[in-house]
Order: sequence, then C-alpha cells, then structure tokens
Amino acid sequence: MDPIRIAVVGVGKIARDQHLPAIAGNKAFSLAATVSPHDAGVEGVSHHKSLDELIENGPAVDAVALCTPPQVRYDLAVQALNKGMHVFLEKPPGATLSECVALSSRAEKVGTTLFAAWHSRFAAGVAPARAWLAERRIESVKIVWREDVRVWHPGQAWIWEPGGLGVFDPGINALSILTHILPRPVFLKTATLEIPANRAAPIAADIQFRDTAGAPIHMDLDWRQTGPQSWDIVVETDAGTLKLSNGGAVLTLPTGAEHSEDLEYPGLYARFANLIRGGRSDVDIAPLRLVADAFLRGNRQTVDAFHD
Amino acid sequence: MDPIRIAVVGVGKIARDQHLPAIAGNKAFSLAATVSPHDAGVEGVSHHKSLDELIENGPAVDAVALCTPPQVRYDLAVQALNKGMHVFLEKPPGATLSECVALSSRAEKVGTTLFAAWHSRFAAGVAPARAWLAERRIESVKIVWREDVRVWHPGQAWIWEPGGLGVFDPGINALSILTHILPRPVFLKTATLEIPANRAAPIAADIQFRDTAGAPIHMDLDWRQTGPQSWDIVVETDAGTLKLSNGGAVLTLPTGAEHSEDLEYPGLYARFANLIRGGRSDVDIAPLRLVADAFLRGNRQTVDAFHD
Repeated sequence: MDPIRIAVVGVGKIARDQHLPAIAGNKAFSLAATVSPHDAGVEGVSHHKSLDELIENGPAVDAVALCTPPQVRYDLAVQALNKGMHVFLEKPPGATLSECVALSSRAEKVGTTLFAAWHSRFAAGVAPARAWLAERRIESVKIVWREDVRVWHPGQAWIWEPGGLGVFDPGINALSILTHILPRPVFLKTATLEIPANRAAPIAADIQFRDTAGAPIHMDLDWRQTGPQSWDIVVETDAGTLKLSNGGAVLTLPTGAEHSEDLEYPGLYARFANLIRGGRSDVDIAPLRLVADAFLRGNRQTVDAFHD
Repeated sequence: MDPIRIAVVGVGKIARDQHLPAIAGNKAFSLAATVSPHDAGVEGVSHHKSLDELIENGPAVDAVALCTPPQVRYDLAVQALNKGMHVFLEKPPGATLSECVALSSRAEKVGTTLFAAWHSRFAAGVAPARAWLAERRIESVKIVWREDVRVWHPGQAWIWEPGGLGVFDPGINALSILTHILPRPVFLKTATLEIPANRAAPIAADIQFRDTAGAPIHMDLDWRQTGPQSWDIVVETDAGTLKLSNGGAVLTLPTGAEHSEDLEYPGLYARFANLIRGGRSDVDIAPLRLVADAFLRGNRQTVDAFHD
C-alpha cells in the first residue's frame, strides 16, 4: 500500500516535539509538506505559507494534521475536507462545539476521515485502566491536575483569551481520559472557576461531576502549582483503588504497578492510519462538551491578576 | 386508543398558562396527576408533593411533563424514565449538555419517549418559514430579541444564577427557531456577554454566527428594553426578505404577510403524542449547544448592577 501523503499545518512546538517524529516513525505515512506563515519548515520537505498556497502550488497531499491554535482550525479543516483530504485535529478539536458538529457532518458528506485526536487517551496506562474498570462498580473518582503554567505555557497569550480554555487546556486531557475509562457517561453538577482579574480564562477550577449511576467525581485543576506537579486520577471501586498518574503514563492497580513507555503520538498516528484505511471517522466531543458545561453552569470568582 | 395518562411536575406559571390548557384540549391525553412541593394542584386531580410520592401512592401514569427550573430536571427525568414513563422536557432540556446526552441514552435504553420541547418552533410562522427557506440561498440573518426582564421575569432569582442562562432564557427561543428554519448548520464565531456587576448571568449579548456556507448571522439580545418589545428574525435571501416577528407568530414573505393563531403548546402536545404512538424520541440539543458555545467562547463585560 502506498503511504498516506500528509502535510503538517502549524509548525509550532507540538508539531516539532510530537507530530513530526510520530509521522517519521510510522511507515503508513510520508511527510509531503509543511504549512506555516511564521515558522520554517523541515529540511528537504516542501514548505508553504498557507494551506491555499499548498493546494495551489504544492505536491499532492492525502491528509493534513492541523496543529494550529483551535480558534483558526475550523476554516482550515473545511478547506481540506472539501479537497477530499483526511483531517487530523489536535485537541481541542475546535473553539466551539457547534463547529465540531458541523465539521463532522461535512466529513461524512465528502466521505473522508475526520479524527478528533485526544493524545492522553493513548498514554500507556489508559487502555489497561479502561479494560480493568469495565467490570467494576465505580464508587468515586478524584482528579488532581495541578501544574505550573509558567513552565508549560510560557507567554502563550492565546490560551488566556476567550476560546483558549485557560486551565482547561491541560484539564481537558484529564477529561479525555475520564470519559474513556469510565464505563458510564459523566455529567457536570457544579463548578467554580477562578479567573485572574486581568485575564478572560480560568487559572483554576473546582468541579463536581457524577456518572449516571450516581458516583461522585471531583476534579481539582490549578495552574499555580510550583514544585511537584500532579496529573493524577484515582478511581475507588468495589475491587479496590485504581490510580493513573503522570497524565496516564503510570497505572497502579490493587495488585501492583504496571508501567510502560510513552507512545501517545505514535498511538494517535496508528489510529489515524487505521481510520483512513477503514474509511471511518472518530469525532468524540464529550471532553469539550464537559468543558463547555463548566463555562455554562459554573460560578465565577475573580482572583489575583496573573502576569507571565 | 386509551388516552395517555400524564402528570404535570412543577405547577408554576408556565404549567398553568400553557401546559394544563394544552393537555385539556388534546384528546390523546388525560391529566392524571400534578406534582409540586409548593403550589396547589388542580380541582379534582390527584396532587402530590413529589414525584416519589406520586410513584408510591398515586394513580398509574404513562407520561410526565417536567415544568420545573432546568437545574433540577435531570434527576426527575431519570426517575420517570426508569419507571418506564415518557418524558416531556420544557426548554431548555437541562442545565448542561452532558446531562441531556445522558438522558437521551437512558431513554433509548429503556425504550420510552423523551421529547426536548422547543415551543417557539411551533409558532405559527415557523413551519412555513422553514419550507420557504429550504429552496433559497441564505445571504444573511439578523435576530433582534429585546425585551424587558422586569415585565417577563419579575423576581425570578434562579434565572440569574449559574445554569439559569440570563438573557439566553428568551434568546434560546430565537436559536430554536434559527436552527429549525435554516437549511444549513450554524456555528458561533464571536460573542460578547454583558454581565451585571451583581449577577452571574448576562443581561445582554451580541453574537456573530455563520452557517456552513458562510452566511453571517447577527444576534442582538437585550433584557433592558422598555417600550416596544422585539422578537424578530430577518433573513435576506436570493429571492428577497423573509421576516418572522412576534417570536415567530407572524411571517412576512416578499409576497406579503401570512399570519395565523398561536398554537405553540397545542402543537407541542400533538407532537409528543405522535412520538409516543410511534415509539420515538426527539432530543435536539443544538439550541443549547449554541448557548454553551457563547459562554465558552464569549468575551465578558461587566455592566451596571441590575435590581428587580
């Protein structure tokens, strides 16, 4: 089978750290082009200032990976789908739910693959956690996602703007795991969002969810954590405690720890290739829906201004 | 066919003004009971303080109409569905999107009818507007929904609380019409929400939507309108201007005005009976999804405090 010729659109940190190495490591793909108005491309690969220019003057492309900020992703995705390309959407898949739903219909109409990628679902501990939990009764869940925004998002202004999600940018990773490993759907009961006086998006949030059997799920998000960082999900069940730590990379079961190497982006690209070969799409908006519910339903508190 | 025995849960203003007369006027239904912890019931009809009490001691019931505030609707709906009852949800169908999705799965599982009712879709002008627009090219849409909150929601504290939606409580009626009459899906581009300094929910909003063919849609919501009130949607098309006014009751086409009597709630109950007889559900969350997108993506501005 010929490799899938893919273009990476938006050549920032996440593209260089994760997408380009994952594509290089997967024989199902060949990197055909890069697109970015600002950044340079990759030695020996066709580079273009815009998707328009790629379509007009560039090499033939079967698929695009959109690694731009979410606020500009919809127009690029529509343009690519309308040219019959398969589309990989970095998380979150869009700036609004309604545009994700519209994209999904569009992909169905043109018959190409649309993949809303949630990289944390491919962390090493997540698949075995899901399998283990499938047969348990869930008693409660506790999520603690506390990191230092100055370390992980230095000077990223867009993340604080409306549509940039604030502390839900990392928090949605936890929600993508939660909605994948629990056997029942989850919905939001109450939320408190802490918004810095000089910003539009939350720096911290405290949320109560429930699953449809009534199990309480508490989520503690904070971007002001210096020192040790936490990306942990603890699930209490009728068969003991399951713990996912390091953002899903390390799984601890009552029987002891399992542990394996980090394969998030290689996992995503293997899945994308499978979807394309099978003529299917995968657009799960449940994590973004829970974030929208927190904005819709949450209490807002103004807290100290935040300066980078 | 035996009539569907229905209980009305939440006997406030909307139940007395609309639901009870619509039920009384439709032979497919018989009013079996009312439920309310505060209000009195209806002369000659079994009345209960809670749904629990109705289930335990009341007459047999096939369906319930939930007319409570949205914040408490989910638990009542699950309880009713689990007893095999059909459920009519007043708008908005829930306090969050995720609970509406969970309810929808639950109804499917138990095999009963769930109906998310959008009363404005049954306003007299809406069905002919939809039919007329189906064959037109949409050039632009302008929605102006300006009313006096002191007249329409006097002293309703819950409407200003998180989950109460503020000016989107009437605005979602416009969105329920918009998403029903336009031939293409709609998504949100930008939003500005004006929040009174002493309240949690917006008193006004200015929103730009687009349809998937690129037509701009502008929405102006304001709860501070004294004097004449506006509930108007104007659609510019390749065949001239369509105007829906009075909340959808009056349709004006390029050929002149059409006009008919208000049958919103009778229309809703006719639809509910049809869904039950046909073993189907109708849970369209698109209007609430657009509101959630406005909260997720919108700029917030603090404006003068509002006192009833």
